[in-house]
Amino acid sequence: MRVAVDAMGGDHAPREQVAGSLLALSRDPKLEIMLVGRQADLEAELSTQGASMDRLELVFATDVIGMNEKPVEALKSKPDSSIGRAVLLVRGGHAEGLIAAGSTGAAVAAAGFGLKRLEGVRRPGIAVPMPALNKSGVCLLIDAGANPSCRPHHLEQYGVMGANYFREIFECASPRVAVVSIGEEEAKGNELTREATKLLRQGELNFVGNIEGRGLFGGDCEVAVADGFVGNIILKASQGCAEMILGKIHQRIGKEQPELMRELFGMTDYAEFGGAPLLGVDGHVMICHGRSDRRAIANAIRACTRAVQQNVKESIVAGLARTAARGASSA
Amino acid sequence: MRVAVDAMGGDHAPREQVAGSLLALSRDPKLEIMLVGRQADLEAELSTQGASMDRLELVFATDVIGMNEKPVEALKSKPDSSIGRAVLLVRGGHAEGLIAAGSTGAAVAAAGFGLKRLEGVRRPGIAVPMPALNKSGVCLLIDAGANPSCRPHHLEQYGVMGANYFREIFECASPRVAVVSIGEEEAKGNELTREATKLLRQGELNFVGNIEGRGLFGGDCEVAVADGFVGNIILKASQGCAEMILGKIHQRIGKEQPELMRELFGMTDYAEFGGAPLLGVDGHVMICHGRSDRRAIANAIRACTRAVQQNVKESIVAGLARTAARGASSA
Repeated sequence: MRVAVDAMGGDHAPREQVAGSLLALSRDPKLEIMLVGRQADLEAELSTQGASMDRLELVFATDVIGMNEKPVEALKSKPDSSIGRAVLLVRGGHAEGLIAAGSTGAAVAAAGFGLKRLEGVRRPGIAVPMPALNKSGVCLLIDAGANPSCRPHHLEQYGVMGANYFREIFECASPRVAVVSIGEEEAKGNELTREATKLLRQGELNFVGNIEGRGLFGGDCEVAVADGFVGNIILKASQGCAEMILGKIHQRIGKEQPELMRELFGMTDYAEFGGAPLLGVDGHVMICHGRSDRRAIANAIRACTRAVQQNVKESIVAGLARTAARGASSA
Repeated sequence: MRVAVDAMGGDHAPREQVAGSLLALSRDPKLEIMLVGRQADLEAELSTQGASMDRLELVFATDVIGMNEKPVEALKSKPDSSIGRAVLLVRGGHAEGLIAAGSTGAAVAAAGFGLKRLEGVRRPGIAVPMPALNKSGVCLLIDAGANPSCRPHHLEQYGVMGANYFREIFECASPRVAVVSIGEEEAKGNELTREATKLLRQGELNFVGNIEGRGLFGGDCEVAVADGFVGNIILKASQGCAEMILGKIHQRIGKEQPELMRELFGMTDYAEFGGAPLLGVDGHVMICHGRSDRRAIANAIRACTRAVQQNVKESIVAGLARTAARGASSA
């Protein structure tokens, strides 16, 4: 099992990317990692961290795409970027997945251009594990921003892809799937959610209808489907809300209650759950927060290897094929 | 100054509605209140609370619309509902505003059918004060659900209405207005946000461009504009997120830190800010959370009277007229 890590992407790159890779290697004796980045940076960091090169390969790329660059333009003007090179490793079969903690836009664009879609997939989607009060402790929100303008069939596919990922990764036999809307009645919402709800209701998923934004955290489902515009806004708004509350708490009791603070920050830290997979491309692309530390990187690597072992790609392709067959027979 | 209170609407009605009205009367010697509801319920509650009838008038309505009824159907089948009757009091000039803590949908529908729109208004919008890390401590989110399918001109008007309300109620000379989108670059987002951004940029407001969901809580603006679908989801998702975090904290330190808990719950409780005005109708309609207690009801009454005193309706009409004149001259 080989995973490529964009060692240059993220607020603390390459330090945490290298340390997280070493941590993952120490946990999993069958794992091999390809660290992708600038030669000088990688060699300096490895020497500082005193790493042995056992099961670790360096792949050099001369460029780095910054967080504030426009993804598509940056990929064109920097043909040898670390994220672009990592995608090529997956495309060429040298690695089965990749870990990207740099610009999300650049990772999505690079994977979109560089990797095939899985058979039957209309649009890839970012699936972000969010904290939730359900049994698993997590609700997968898909799409969180890859596809801001969705059609009903895209949402239907997000339901299928999200449910298959959730089942295999979070060990839940029959994840409940819902469409995020306003009000739980099916007549509520907009045309997109109403049409998507109809499609999902006809399918094989454990579809529970519409949920409000509240039900996502409240534990009313395991997979919450939204278009990429709404999903991204949910993600960012809840991060902002959590940060505001935790900031206030930290100010007041941070010193006396360091353990509680760690627990709270952990609960709202989606890195804890192993990063967000870009579902629908032919390769296991895990998108991590820019702030990711070594633990977050190591968790993302573990989620990536688990997705490979559990045949998530194959489950998704099979699920989509059944969905398409049903659509064709009912049409 | 006379305000109508739907005494039957809300989880703790009529108790908290009556108590909140009495509290508001004790604070403001010029205030008069019309309590609207079932005769037996109102008289029993007033007798329990030992209220004098000074500056308090009872208006009887035989029906109540429940939280789970379909708004439009319920208004038709219950022609003498408390919310419908309260709207008629405003329409007839007997009260200048009304306080509604029952079904939001019923309040919006009743006001939409029963009250004229202010001159120039295309669609009324619900403006919800959210906690934020800006100087005022509050960001007004408009629309939070009155109008799920918006056009660019609706968002432009929400900016104008929200800015005028914010300026007068939260005492901020030049509130920053932003459109909620994904990414701050203007090219990001969807067609609706891109078009609305163009319109708002040409106008007289202190328009600061796009914000992400995070910037809303982070204090990047005072007025956050979104269509009613997205706005409602932001509202509910952030409530759900806050409840999840506060629940966890309460479990762990609620007993030792009662004061901190009160502070945290207060910070995330939008009732604290005096309810959410339905902007754009000819009358000051304040929508409160179903859970509102007497303090929340009294705060909403105060916000309502302040909106009357500060001539918010007139400011909105003037602002929209300038916007329309500019649109016509540039067209």
